[in-house]
Amino acid sequence: MILTVTLNAALDLTYRVPRLLPHTSHRVRHSAERPGGKGVNVARVLAALGHETVVTGFAGGATGDTLRRLLAESTGPLTDALVPITGATRRTVAVVDDATGDATQLNEAGPDVTPAEWAAFDDRYGQLLRDADAVALCGSLPPGVPVGAYAHLIRQARARHVPVLLDTSGEPLRRGIAARPDVVKPNAAELAALTGSTDPLPAALDARRRGAHAVAASLGPDGMLAITPDGTWRATPPAPLRGNPTGAGDSAVAGLLSALAEGLPWPDRLIRAVSLSAATVRAPGAGEFDAGAYEELRTAVRVEEL
Amino acid sequence: MILTVTLNAALDLTYRVPRLLPHTSHRVRHSAERPGGKGVNVARVLAALGHETVVTGFAGGATGDTLRRLLAESTGPLTDALVPITGATRRTVAVVDDATGDATQLNEAGPDVTPAEWAAFDDRYGQLLRDADAVALCGSLPPGVPVGAYAHLIRQARARHVPVLLDTSGEPLRRGIAARPDVVKPNAAELAALTGSTDPLPAALDARRRGAHAVAASLGPDGMLAITPDGTWRATPPAPLRGNPTGAGDSAVAGLLSALAEGLPWPDRLIRAVSLSAATVRAPGAGEFDAGAYEELRTAVRVEEL
Repeated sequence: MILTVTLNAALDLTYRVPRLLPHTSHRVRHSAERPGGKGVNVARVLAALGHETVVTGFAGGATGDTLRRLLAESTGPLTDALVPITGATRRTVAVVDDATGDATQLNEAGPDVTPAEWAAFDDRYGQLLRDADAVALCGSLPPGVPVGAYAHLIRQARARHVPVLLDTSGEPLRRGIAARPDVVKPNAAELAALTGSTDPLPAALDARRRGAHAVAASLGPDGMLAITPDGTWRATPPAPLRGNPTGAGDSAVAGLLSALAEGLPWPDRLIRAVSLSAATVRAPGAGEFDAGAYEELRTAVRVEEL
Repeated sequence: MILTVTLNAALDLTYRVPRLLPHTSHRVRHSAERPGGKGVNVARVLAALGHETVVTGFAGGATGDTLRRLLAESTGPLTDALVPITGATRRTVAVVDDATGDATQLNEAGPDVTPAEWAAFDDRYGQLLRDADAVALCGSLPPGVPVGAYAHLIRQARARHVPVLLDTSGEPLRRGIAARPDVVKPNAAELAALTGSTDPLPAALDARRRGAHAVAASLGPDGMLAITPDGTWRATPPAPLRGNPTGAGDSAVAGLLSALAEGLPWPDRLIRAVSLSAATVRAPGAGEFDAGAYEELRTAVRVEEL
């Protein structure tokens, strides 16, 4: 099975308003709630593709109960192994402006996780690693979890020879990368924040020097750049993408991880990541992927060795 | 006891952000949740003043559970008589911009109430009216509740000789007022939408001609204007108010209703309404009132007969 870790899972709310005008009152036209947090999104894509997937991390409070109820309604072989906490799972609110299609994002910080809860998670994670073919560590850290949490979790995975992918930002990325994950998947902004360079190729090389075995950088409409022990590749989607990019990065992680777990070589991993990511941009709902577009795109993504 | 009806109760979220910039992502600095909806706010003020208060309306889903849990933590003699429904209680989100103090409001529409749930509420309301000294009908209607709901509830209260106050807007106000409530409490914008006049005195006279026995219009910093069978009065706070006006109208309703239930004459009702309203603007938390300011303001509000 593939394990995804979401320490700061979220109940994602999407509100549609005719137009967002600060300092006025809005009647929300349509509201939707779905289970969220990067690792949860990755897991939902993996399960929809038919991969045995286990979700862990933390969930608590009424928002956590709703998250777990919605997660149970997901398509495919997805198991909920979230660790209960006293604090409440955070909410995120995406306010989509119907006039422009643009979203304004409001992200709660997340629950206070106690040292005992963090220790309980650590035990659970160790047990889950035994059956894992690969593990993804995704997203921000809630208050109370040590900033070096990902470095610790990476070392545990590596000690058990489970390939580990890290997708986070800021200080948790900086510290995590030093623990030598198999793959890091920054986007262009995260790479730039980490390395100070806005040119993806030198930035990815720098990121790799900081400890990652491979760097797979997602570059939005430009696809993906991978610097790996086996070579350097760029994979690009066939045409400029139109649609909602929410969740495209999480779908790319699902593509990389599922292909890695299947033992596929890097060019095939990149094709899967880029086509799933593009199929997510094309889907009408945020964070879902269009299965038809995915099948079409798989044969249309171009990979070139650099 | 005093009964307050909130058909579209809410879980009110307040988010503080450094500055709200549409189409960007925000990390929420501080988030708070409290039980909301106009009638719930009125009830919390009444209970804090020591009045036996009963809250009814609808609550459902995980958000409804949280609302009820928070309501149980309120100060004073407050009883929860909310009717359970299958749909989920709506959320409202107030995004407070720390740079300016201004709030951007996002209000979900509310749950779909089934005909059977509306009938169950109607039964419960009839039972609760038996022990009520006064009743307040407050706020918007959720989808599924007939637009003439308030007219129906007003007729039931009047048939049992329970004084009834209506605080709503739009079509529910227009229809409710025709059922001859004892008091309506519109604000200036609601009065203007109802009557087409932006001049409060002729607008309030027009509103009264539409069926209300008395009109008590809340005019923000200008206090309150009341046109009643006993006379016409204007009550004004002593000085321009600074602070957060959220909940000031609900505190005014609590003032009017508690004084009415105690059999006080109109000038005393207005003094209580205006001083509670002003003490709410002065309180640091949205929808709370400053008890010290209330005691001070009670002797400083000026009432003049017109």
